[in-house]
Amino acid sequence: MAQLRIALAQINPTVGDLTGNARLILGSAREAAAQGAHLLATPEMALTGYPVEDLALRPSFVRAARAALDRLAGELDREGLGELVVVAGYLDDRAALNGSAHEGGRTGRGACSPVNAAAVIHRGSVLIRSAKHHLPNYGVFDEYRYFVPGDVLPVVRVRGVDVAVAICEDLWQDGGPVAAADEARAGLLLSINASPYELEKDDVRYELLARRAAEAGCAVAYVNQIGGQDELVFDGDSIVVAADGRVVARAGQFTEELFVTDLDLPRANQPAVDATAANGMTIRRVVASADQAEHYLPRPAVITPRLDDLAEIYRALVMGLRDYVRKNGFTTVTLGLSGGIDSALVAAIACDALGPQNVYGVSLPSRYSSEHSKDDAEETARRTGLHYETVPIAPMVESYLKTLADSGTALTGLAEENLQARVRGTALMALSNQRGHLVLATGNKSELAVGYSTLYGDAVGAFGPIKDVSKSLVWALARWRDEEAERRGQVPPIPRNSIEKEPSAELRPGQKDTDSLPAYQVLDEILDLYVEGDHGREEIEARGFDPALVQRVLRLTDTAEYKRRQYPPGTKISAKAFGRDRRLPITSRWREVP
Amino acid sequence: MAQLRIALAQINPTVGDLTGNARLILGSAREAAAQGAHLLATPEMALTGYPVEDLALRPSFVRAARAALDRLAGELDREGLGELVVVAGYLDDRAALNGSAHEGGRTGRGACSPVNAAAVIHRGSVLIRSAKHHLPNYGVFDEYRYFVPGDVLPVVRVRGVDVAVAICEDLWQDGGPVAAADEARAGLLLSINASPYELEKDDVRYELLARRAAEAGCAVAYVNQIGGQDELVFDGDSIVVAADGRVVARAGQFTEELFVTDLDLPRANQPAVDATAANGMTIRRVVASADQAEHYLPRPAVITPRLDDLAEIYRALVMGLRDYVRKNGFTTVTLGLSGGIDSALVAAIACDALGPQNVYGVSLPSRYSSEHSKDDAEETARRTGLHYETVPIAPMVESYLKTLADSGTALTGLAEENLQARVRGTALMALSNQRGHLVLATGNKSELAVGYSTLYGDAVGAFGPIKDVSKSLVWALARWRDEEAERRGQVPPIPRNSIEKEPSAELRPGQKDTDSLPAYQVLDEILDLYVEGDHGREEIEARGFDPALVQRVLRLTDTAEYKRRQYPPGTKISAKAFGRDRRLPITSRWREVP
Repeated sequence: MAQLRIALAQINPTVGDLTGNARLILGSAREAAAQGAHLLATPEMALTGYPVEDLALRPSFVRAARAALDRLAGELDREGLGELVVVAGYLDDRAALNGSAHEGGRTGRGACSPVNAAAVIHRGSVLIRSAKHHLPNYGVFDEYRYFVPGDVLPVVRVRGVDVAVAICEDLWQDGGPVAAADEARAGLLLSINASPYELEKDDVRYELLARRAAEAGCAVAYVNQIGGQDELVFDGDSIVVAADGRVVARAGQFTEELFVTDLDLPRANQPAVDATAANGMTIRRVVASADQAEHYLPRPAVITPRLDDLAEIYRALVMGLRDYVRKNGFTTVTLGLSGGIDSALVAAIACDALGPQNVYGVSLPSRYSSEHSKDDAEETARRTGLHYETVPIAPMVESYLKTLADSGTALTGLAEENLQARVRGTALMALSNQRGHLVLATGNKSELAVGYSTLYGDAVGAFGPIKDVSKSLVWALARWRDEEAERRGQVPPIPRNSIEKEPSAELRPGQKDTDSLPAYQVLDEILDLYVEGDHGREEIEARGFDPALVQRVLRLTDTAEYKRRQYPPGTKISAKAFGRDRRLPITSRWREVP
Repeated sequence: MAQLRIALAQINPTVGDLTGNARLILGSAREAAAQGAHLLATPEMALTGYPVEDLALRPSFVRAARAALDRLAGELDREGLGELVVVAGYLDDRAALNGSAHEGGRTGRGACSPVNAAAVIHRGSVLIRSAKHHLPNYGVFDEYRYFVPGDVLPVVRVRGVDVAVAICEDLWQDGGPVAAADEARAGLLLSINASPYELEKDDVRYELLARRAAEAGCAVAYVNQIGGQDELVFDGDSIVVAADGRVVARAGQFTEELFVTDLDLPRANQPAVDATAANGMTIRRVVASADQAEHYLPRPAVITPRLDDLAEIYRALVMGLRDYVRKNGFTTVTLGLSGGIDSALVAAIACDALGPQNVYGVSLPSRYSSEHSKDDAEETARRTGLHYETVPIAPMVESYLKTLADSGTALTGLAEENLQARVRGTALMALSNQRGHLVLATGNKSELAVGYSTLYGDAVGAFGPIKDVSKSLVWALARWRDEEAERRGQVPPIPRNSIEKEPSAELRPGQKDTDSLPAYQVLDEILDLYVEGDHGREEIEARGFDPALVQRVLRLTDTAEYKRRQYPPGTKISAKAFGRDRRLPITSRWREVP
């Protein structure tokens, strides 16, 4: 057996920030070397950020990414870090890989052939460049659109241990690199990832790793990035499992850290020559350092405890918001505070993400706003410490009503209700434009699903922090956040009355959400089956729901696609967020309920 | 040789409208039979409409599509149309194809395996079901996401002629069905398509067909749908080419028609047994009618003349708008008329699409609106005959300014400019909500590219008819439309002054577009290279443009992504529309100009 100290760089890259991302990798390398690590692994496409989407098809960006990788290799060496073996995820072109990527993928008619690549850097040069083999093209992934697949498994000898390198999806699909790693008799399978957070993803991830370790016949080290990128948020959760499937070490969730682990691994016993695996992949071997490390005292392994479900979701929402604001060059946000639970939860998330000094809450009362609404909005401000101001909307609403009536159109019903929401949206945008705040939309997933929101009204905003959070989960998170504050002896940020009162849009006298919608608990169960589960009407009715209710919910959901398409991005926490992830035609006559 | 009369159904299906689309196919079959055709071909996925996007992943929709196909087969027979061989595009599941689709595509972790299918119907039953082989996954296509590919080439004997059936992309990619059709010694290769219109697509299409005819060694009949579906518009342009590449017949562009052509084709001389092609595809033969048709007098072939470029684009925009409005259940539209060229062109397109009686133009003058703006808006109304009304925005703008100032925020500069645009947007939405009009956004591609528009302001609307039309093309189309009217002795719809005056947003005194932007002619050339051509800064500068100007345009374009994402859909006429087609991260530090 041979000792190997590996460092997994759980970093937070920004898409397109080649200089900043290289700095993150260099910083990780310094720390890894200082801690005596032999091998540093960075996440998938760490140098470019993930996902780069259409930037992959722009030749100038591919060239810039290649150049940044070469510069990084040089800088590592100049800083005296050359002996550390660094595995870096980046973007390259098939032509650079010398036959290690093949046709397929990228069925487009263009000439450019980008690859989702990994480079192994040692002593200032790139020992090998390889391309991801399995290209995911479902859910949030579109990699078949952007990349050509690779067919080489790189095996790099580090301190006498053969380390096979695979990229993200290569581990999720059967066959391919995992099978080749077994044939190659690798001592360690290193998996570099940009694996987005989803509810309960950590459990799925561990089970997968245990299974793949058995198939590869060796330990598996899995490194994942953290941070928010548009609607995605990455949770880290880097893991090392032994060949027998046991968790050896596990990093934190949503924590930026260099995670160092000592492993005792089989010594390489294969000749360092290339071979072809049974599945047709090429096993390509390179040697960084053939001699094993001198014996040293291993550190105790760290297995960071998991967050509970609500803590995990709340952390995802905070990180998603913070990074969207920060990475887009903003420092402050503004939002409408209605006194209701949705805006109170968004305010709490924003204050946790950015500090209350950077959050500007605006009460926008109308003639239909109740006293408790104004009180609860003010109470949210008092509890969190955010900036608070009041802009009454009645003068603008009256002005529209009168001018339009003078022009011949009297507004009534829904048109008048929507007008109020749009006056609020316009007021928030005016404050945003004048003072440089980013506007947060406060809609939740349940109301968005059934179209219970006003386009250009409450849907106004650059980011919707809870757009993928059902109303039931909004309540659960609000209670959890308040209890968490109590556990820590802090002031609970969300007023009890906002949590407990009956939801109302307050756009007409005495209005309640239940005038238009079923109770949220039932609504959310049906939506979960229809949206996340892709179940049809009959399957949902078979679960025992009232058929008339099911039909009503499905009808509402089928007709709300246009609004969802126009909604701002927000952190995705479930398998199917609305908007960009769920792709339905706007123009469609298909209805689950004919 | 054997005679064959083929009918190509250039129809306009609606996504999800299984009943309505079946009715269209049935209507085509009636007419084809009445005209004595032996074979009717309908477009790709004619029964479901195209593209169905995530509906393909919903098992209840796949089941409904299968059931609709079976019903269609029965109805054809009951109506006495059973002898006509009907090739129908629809959606099916791999399981239904008995081994004619294989793994690959749909790399998702789900269980469902949809196929983009073709069925050959004869005498009330389905002779064979096959799946598309090449799945496009670039540009507007995401088929690798939705479908598993097929590996069977169906060859159906119709009146003694072996007809091979391929689906759309099968013709665009080398190898696969075209090569297999050659080996099968097919007498005719039938290609069913849902091929979206793009500038100059018709030329590309013909060249492709001529080449594939040579490769398949037989005549090729190509049928395409017409009509608008969200941002796509299909142009028809069905074509028949002989084995030597000569155009035999060509249908109209954007015309709903049953296109009937008589062909003289080689008699089938192969045993009707299955075989495996060199590329691994299965050639599966079925016999509908082995005996050749009794000799009849062929009709003269029709080769419809091509539209010129501007006529073609204008037709695409009219059809895209008409179908978006109609297929979404609206009959009337409203739009702001500023007196400028963009809204004047949109008004003309809307009047041509829906009739002026269904178009409601609204002048929304501010204190900065010039007299000529109001006059030109009114003149547009007078020339087209649309409904015209005036809603002054000053009262609402004043009300916002005063209320926000009272609350402590005085609006200035861009914040005040944007406010005016947003008051207009809100007023249009109020009229829309009250009276049931669909709102049209009037922004063009040039201003959208560089972010010269107001989110929730002039970007308000359910559909942006000219969002993919550059400002230079806006002028060209306006002139063309007026000249066209003169040629026909009609009133030119667009006031000369709207075409000739200098563009201005009129959001502050004396404002001109050129205060913020370069001259549109130069801007459009740079944008074309950057957006459509994916060229980098250096390549664009090398064309001789002023480097400072190039850098300014690229900087503006790189930062406008968020606005583009929020813009409503509009008819796509070029390779890269903004918004849904071009997929760039919102959060990105990558800049062509560092």
